[in-house]
Amino acid sequence: MSVTAPAGAPARALVCRNCGAEYPLIAQNACYECFGPLEVGYHDDVLRAVTREQIESGPDNIWRYAPLLPAGQDPATRVTVNPGMTPLIRADALAAELGMKTLWVKDDSANPTHSFKDRVVSVALSAAKGLGFTRFACASTGNLANSVAAHGARAGVPTIVFIPYDLEQNKVVTSAVYAGDVVAIEGSYDDVNRLCSELTETDEFEDTAFVNVNVRPYYAEGSKTLGYEVAEQLGWRIPEQVVIPMASGELLTKVDKAFSELIDVGLVPDSSWRVFGAQSAGCNPIATALHADTDQITPVKPTGIAKSLNIGDPAAGPYALEAVRRTNGWMDYVNDDEIRAGIQLLARTTGVFAETAGGVTVAVLKKLVESGKLDPDAETVVYNTGEGLKTIDAVSAQVGPTHTVAPNLKAVRAAGLLG
Amino acid sequence: MSVTAPAGAPARALVCRNCGAEYPLIAQNACYECFGPLEVGYHDDVLRAVTREQIESGPDNIWRYAPLLPAGQDPATRVTVNPGMTPLIRADALAAELGMKTLWVKDDSANPTHSFKDRVVSVALSAAKGLGFTRFACASTGNLANSVAAHGARAGVPTIVFIPYDLEQNKVVTSAVYAGDVVAIEGSYDDVNRLCSELTETDEFEDTAFVNVNVRPYYAEGSKTLGYEVAEQLGWRIPEQVVIPMASGELLTKVDKAFSELIDVGLVPDSSWRVFGAQSAGCNPIATALHADTDQITPVKPTGIAKSLNIGDPAAGPYALEAVRRTNGWMDYVNDDEIRAGIQLLARTTGVFAETAGGVTVAVLKKLVESGKLDPDAETVVYNTGEGLKTIDAVSAQVGPTHTVAPNLKAVRAAGLLG
Ligand SMILES: Cc1ncc(COP(=O)(O)O)c(C=O)c1O
Ligand SMILES: Cc1ncc(COP(=O)(O)O)c(C=O)c1O
Ligand SMILES: [Zn+2]
Ligand SMILES: [Zn+2]
Repeated sequence: MSVTAPAGAPARALVCRNCGAEYPLIAQNACYECFGPLEVGYHDDVLRAVTREQIESGPDNIWRYAPLLPAGQDPATRVTVNPGMTPLIRADALAAELGMKTLWVKDDSANPTHSFKDRVVSVALSAAKGLGFTRFACASTGNLANSVAAHGARAGVPTIVFIPYDLEQNKVVTSAVYAGDVVAIEGSYDDVNRLCSELTETDEFEDTAFVNVNVRPYYAEGSKTLGYEVAEQLGWRIPEQVVIPMASGELLTKVDKAFSELIDVGLVPDSSWRVFGAQSAGCNPIATALHADTDQITPVKPTGIAKSLNIGDPAAGPYALEAVRRTNGWMDYVNDDEIRAGIQLLARTTGVFAETAGGVTVAVLKKLVESGKLDPDAETVVYNTGEGLKTIDAVSAQVGPTHTVAPNLKAVRAAGLLG
Repeated sequence: MSVTAPAGAPARALVCRNCGAEYPLIAQNACYECFGPLEVGYHDDVLRAVTREQIESGPDNIWRYAPLLPAGQDPATRVTVNPGMTPLIRADALAAELGMKTLWVKDDSANPTHSFKDRVVSVALSAAKGLGFTRFACASTGNLANSVAAHGARAGVPTIVFIPYDLEQNKVVTSAVYAGDVVAIEGSYDDVNRLCSELTETDEFEDTAFVNVNVRPYYAEGSKTLGYEVAEQLGWRIPEQVVIPMASGELLTKVDKAFSELIDVGLVPDSSWRVFGAQSAGCNPIATALHADTDQITPVKPTGIAKSLNIGDPAAGPYALEAVRRTNGWMDYVNDDEIRAGIQLLARTTGVFAETAGGVTVAVLKKLVESGKLDPDAETVVYNTGEGLKTIDAVSAQVGPTHTVAPNLKAVRAAGLLG
């Protein structure tokens, strides 16, 4: 399937990240020549014509950046729950505990289904609708399934989401409550992903857009909005350092791309930035490759509580490595206890309750400061990409009532709450 | 404690809802003369000077309405997680299923701690800070505790929240993760509330603002923003019908007050509206009084899954009755099965996953249409005030994977997903 982009639309073609081969804006993920991943290419002149005023007069969600995205320019074409423009929170107390100067939390748990995945799904499905697809699907570590299912319910389009069978129950319920199909696969996310690739080749799934498979190039562009927003919220400038969780590595790659684009098109002044990547010890193939100073990413069998980041064979891993090396950043990983501590540290100092992915990112931030890899005096943004309520079991053994008492003053006094 | 309001501030005095006695803007809940509840009174001329342009140029949160609130005019004085300006979602599919014409969902699960309570807490604590309090507290059915704990963490102020011991675990964890004190009381919410009233009289709690006890008049005003926003989001006009969940009855009362104020100060054209109240069958003292055509609200011992609405002795019940009678509305209640069905109906047709309180409200909407009490042809707004993830157990037995299969095409075919 393919569509002709309307005149003046920013997207121009799909471009192979590997060999540069170009394709029309179709539903295709990999290069026919070299099997490299395809990425959306834009008309430079169209992007350069975009102004801050144009963006600022747009809606308070990702669609203010429609002039920089491959779909959704016309509101009537959008398939969306209107995610984005989530808070950028000044985190002075957290900075103080970590010995840092200026720290911000970009809190993307504030999206409609409470993860950054609403951004990529809105862009992917708006493109998919334009391409003529009539069913929406995904291979998911949890959050993506929540988002696709909610988008389908909002749009009145049937959905079928594929998840590993051992996901957190809250993520399963949040996908299933919208009444689409939820297929639990007896295997890892990487098995789910492989299966979904096969399904896109079947007749029965011909009309189905898998947001992160056959329409992945459009999907990936949605993550750019997490870079655009931070720059706009800082008053149209790029922060010196960003710390970003990695599963496939796509989000990190695209935030970096967003910063480059903003400079290229003249929306922010030129400046340099450093990109830092966060993984869990249970699934650290990208960070391990960086530490081993190799381009070779060796797939792993993921373990541990940060299930949303458990992609053992990360598609965008090489590009994440490239971005981190080019910007003089670093990557690190943390174990389950550190993840739990990261969740609690963030909650206690900022009032933001993150899922395990956010715990990973905050704990890695701490580690990067302690190891001297990240400059504590440079302005830093740490990304919380998901909601604590979805991974409640991660901390439910750690926290609870501090006191349990009978409903009278005497009992309250005995509990030590009164002198 | 008392403060002098700065010149030009909208709030004027605390006014007894019962006898009209007036008090300065102190931390006081009940009239010294008649024990009636106190409410914030405003300078009419200050309110009348407020313009749409002034509001529209404010931030995208409740503070755009600061000129109509009793605290927070100066951003530096705010204690807040910046709630508000949550989506007003056009719900055509839900309207069609219910046989209605124009229906909107005001989705207040989008607030930072995922309930409308962030609104009342932000206003109460901003007032409390001005009154000199140095610790924040509340008596809560769950959501209020989440919000107070998060606000305290954000502001760096110690918190102590009081909850019934049998709350949903997700609400307990979400209150405790911020590392303040969480006191589980072996009793009902009404016991918790009584105890907190006593605690405000003790020396040990002299410096403590209980948001819904000693600073309740300010707290209650925060709910007005759920009326203001709907009117602004509709293009500065009041909807014909609103359906609102009730626990204490305060939210309903204040949305109605907000509509009156908007007309009085000239921000919207004069029009009439009808207010409908929703309770659960397990806790229906206000609806029961209406059905019995009495002013006498008989307290009940609450049961059932809609725990956030389980206030058996509702403080604002008489005022909720008054508003519903005056506007020619109605109240009704639904049982646990209807609540679960309400959650699923809303999710399936709108992509919004509500907590039990939202299930109550949607199910009552359905009942009101079926009984002819609510006009299906009049434009209606139904309020979802909380997040499905907080009461996940309500539906976790109802929904789950629709298929569980091995990670290969053969298994997918055997499961009937391929022809
Ligand atoms: C909460 C959360 N954060 C971060 C990520 C990482 O995304 P990516 O695969 O783009 O690296 C995911 C992926 O599922 C996620 O769910
Ligand atoms: C989710 C939710 N909705 C509605 C209400 C009702 O609020 P009120 O006590 O103002 O009637 C509550 C009260 O706790 C609540 O938690
Ligand atoms: Zn190629
Ligand atoms: Zn009085």
